[in-house]
Amino acid sequence: MRDLLQGEARAAALHPLLARGWAETPDGKGIARTFRFRDFPAAFGWMTQVALAAEKADHHPDWRNVFRTVEVTLSTHSAGGITRLDIDLAGTMDRLAGE
Amino acid sequence: MRDLLQGEARAAALHPLLARGWAETPDGKGIARTFRFRDFPAAFGWMTQVALAAEKADHHPDWRNVFRTVEVTLSTHSAGGITRLDIDLAGTMDRLAGE
Repeated sequence: MRDLLQGEARAAALHPLLARGWAETPDGKGIARTFRFRDFPAAFGWMTQVALAAEKADHHPDWRNVFRTVEVTLSTHSAGGITRLDIDLAGTMDRLAGE
Repeated sequence: MRDLLQGEARAAALHPLLARGWAETPDGKGIARTFRFRDFPAAFGWMTQVALAAEKADHHPDWRNVFRTVEVTLSTHSAGGITRLDIDLAGTMDRLAGE
């Protein structure tokens, strides 16, 4: 889970996320997406659901909330890049956002 | 509440916040502070309490959470700067952080 994804394994893992609006960060060490909700309670309600999942996985996002928008960056700092932990948390975020 | 604070009223309102670790943003239109907690649940638990107060006041923070740290910026965009809404929300944040 905490092994750096590289080569084809990385490409295969990223492919469905990039199709859903995620992008690689400029340094290639993470993935980022901006989520927009109908209002602040919807945005923070989603964050609360994600927070419980993140704590359970012991893997936490870097995220910024401004009113109904949440900008997320996921990376596994201990591995120096993207791991299965990031892919899974991104999937959880998308699912909880109703996608 | 949504009137721009200026001159002596602004200085008087900011004084106790600056003494508690808040700083004016470089553009002078907001106040910022970084809060650190013992772990992610403590950080997000505090955010949840703040979120309820923010929604009740209909005044929301710009905040970024990375693990046990939360960077906050408060400003009243409709007024183009700092109002009593920001001062009050900053006070609520400090109080909920146990200060």
